[in-house]
Amino acid sequence: MQKLRKLIAEKSCNICVGLDPFVELFPTELDTKNVGEAIIKFNRAIITAVADIVPVVKPQIAFYEQYGIAGMQAFADACQFSKENGLYVIADAKRGDIGSTAAGYAKAFLTDGGFDCDAVTVNGYLGTDGIKPFLDTGRDIFVLAKTSNPSGGELQSLTLESGEKVYEKMTELIHSWGENAGAVVGATYPSELAGVCEKYPDMMLLIPGYGAQGGTGADIAVARNQSVVNSSRGILYAEKDRAKSLDEFAAAAREAVVKMKADLN
Amino acid sequence: MQKLRKLIAEKSCNICVGLDPFVELFPTELDTKNVGEAIIKFNRAIITAVADIVPVVKPQIAFYEQYGIAGMQAFADACQFSKENGLYVIADAKRGDIGSTAAGYAKAFLTDGGFDCDAVTVNGYLGTDGIKPFLDTGRDIFVLAKTSNPSGGELQSLTLESGEKVYEKMTELIHSWGENAGAVVGATYPSELAGVCEKYPDMMLLIPGYGAQGGTGADIAVARNQSVVNSSRGILYAEKDRAKSLDEFAAAAREAVVKMKADLN
Repeated sequence: MQKLRKLIAEKSCNICVGLDPFVELFPTELDTKNVGEAIIKFNRAIITAVADIVPVVKPQIAFYEQYGIAGMQAFADACQFSKENGLYVIADAKRGDIGSTAAGYAKAFLTDGGFDCDAVTVNGYLGTDGIKPFLDTGRDIFVLAKTSNPSGGELQSLTLESGEKVYEKMTELIHSWGENAGAVVGATYPSELAGVCEKYPDMMLLIPGYGAQGGTGADIAVARNQSVVNSSRGILYAEKDRAKSLDEFAAAAREAVVKMKADLN
Repeated sequence: MQKLRKLIAEKSCNICVGLDPFVELFPTELDTKNVGEAIIKFNRAIITAVADIVPVVKPQIAFYEQYGIAGMQAFADACQFSKENGLYVIADAKRGDIGSTAAGYAKAFLTDGGFDCDAVTVNGYLGTDGIKPFLDTGRDIFVLAKTSNPSGGELQSLTLESGEKVYEKMTELIHSWGENAGAVVGATYPSELAGVCEKYPDMMLLIPGYGAQGGTGADIAVARNQSVVNSSRGILYAEKDRAKSLDEFAAAAREAVVKMKADLN
C-alpha cells in the first residue's frame, strides 16, 4: 500500500474516482453504437480532467464485461491510460477462487502481462489459499468485509458463536494477510466502519457507498487517515445535460471532485 | 435448471468438463505464441470429442483473463462453440457485487448480447440484492456454499450462534433463491456434501474437486441424482505426452470421460 499512501499524501486527497461507464448518461456527442470507442473517449476525458487532483481510479469491470470484447478493450485502456497519468489503479473485480485459479486472476490484474493494475478487489469467502497468489505479486488487494448494499448483512452481519460478526471475522483474516491487504467497508454502515477503524487503525480501507448510495462525509470522517473513498456516478455524471459537450462533462467532473474533497475535510 | 436436468437425463451423464487451458500442457503442435488461437483450437478439439457424451462444460474465466483480450476472445469462443454443440455452458466466474453492478455481470454472462452462457457461478457474500439481477435473466446460477479448497473452512466452517455453520446458512439462502439457484459444494468435503443433499434433495449442485483435487466417486455418490461433477485437468490433459497430436489429446479426453462415468456409477 506504499504507493497508494504516498499518492494520497502528495495530493492531500483520498478520493477514488470510480470509472463506471453508463453509456445512457454519456454526452450525446459520443457515438455509443461503437460502444468500446465511446467508453474510451469518455474515460480519457474524465481521467485527464482529474488526474492532477486525485490519487486513485477504480474501473468496475462488470460495466465493461457487459459489452464483451469491445468492453474489455475499453477496460484495458482505462487501466493503461490512468497509469500513464500517474494514478493508482484499482481493478474492481471482486475476484475470489481456489489457489490455482486465483493465480490466474492475480496474473490477469496484478502483472505487467495482464491488465497491469496496482490493486484488485477480492472476495475472501474462500480463505487464505485464494488470497495468497494475489499477495505473492507484491501488489495490493482490497478484500470485501462489510459491503455497502442493503442485503450485505444477510451473511456478513450474522453473529458467530465467538460473539463476533461474520464481517468482523473476515476483517481479522484480512488483517492477518499483511500490509498489502486492505478492507472494503461501505460508507452506508458508519458504526461498523468506526469499529473497524478503532480495531485496525493502520489498515487501509476502500470505502464505497459515498454519494449516490447515501454515505456522507460525516459518516466516514473516522476513516479519514486510513482510507480512499470512492465516488462514481456523482463525479462522472455531475453534468446531467447530455446535450453538453464531453469537455463540459469533464469540467463538471473536476468540479464535483473539488466539492467532494471539501465535504470530506 | 430445466435445460440442465433434461441434458443430464438424455445423456445419462452428469459430468461437467472444465475447460481450463494450461498452455504448458498443450500438445506441442499448437503454437502457443499465438495464445488465443492455440486455446481456441485446443478447446474446439476437446469439445468436439466429448459433446455427444457429456451435458455440460465449464470454462473457468481466470485462465482466459490472464491472457488479456486474446484470452477473452478464446473464452467467448469456448462459450459459443460449446453452445453450438448442444452443451449447457457454465461460466465459472464467481462473480458477486452490489445490485447495479451485478446487473452488469448478469448481462455479461447470461444474455444473448454478452457471453451468452446458461449459468454463471456466483459468490453470495453480498446477499440477495447481489443475486437477484442474475435470476431476473431467467437463466441459472451456482452459488458458492462449501468450496473445495483447503482454506475454504476458515470462514465457511465457522459456527454461528444459531448453531449452523456459515456455509449451511449460505446454503439456506441459496435454497431461498429458488429453482434456478444451485449450490457449489466441493467433493473434498463429503460429509458436508451429504448434509446438504439430505436437507435439500431437490437442489442442483455443482461439485468441483473430483480427481486432481482428491475427491472420489464414492465421496460424491450421495449427490448422484442432483449434481454435475466437474473435472478439468483429469480430462483435458489425460494425454500427458506433449509430442502426441491434438487428435490424440482429444481421444484421450473422451476416454477419460468414459472412465469417469464408470467411476461415478
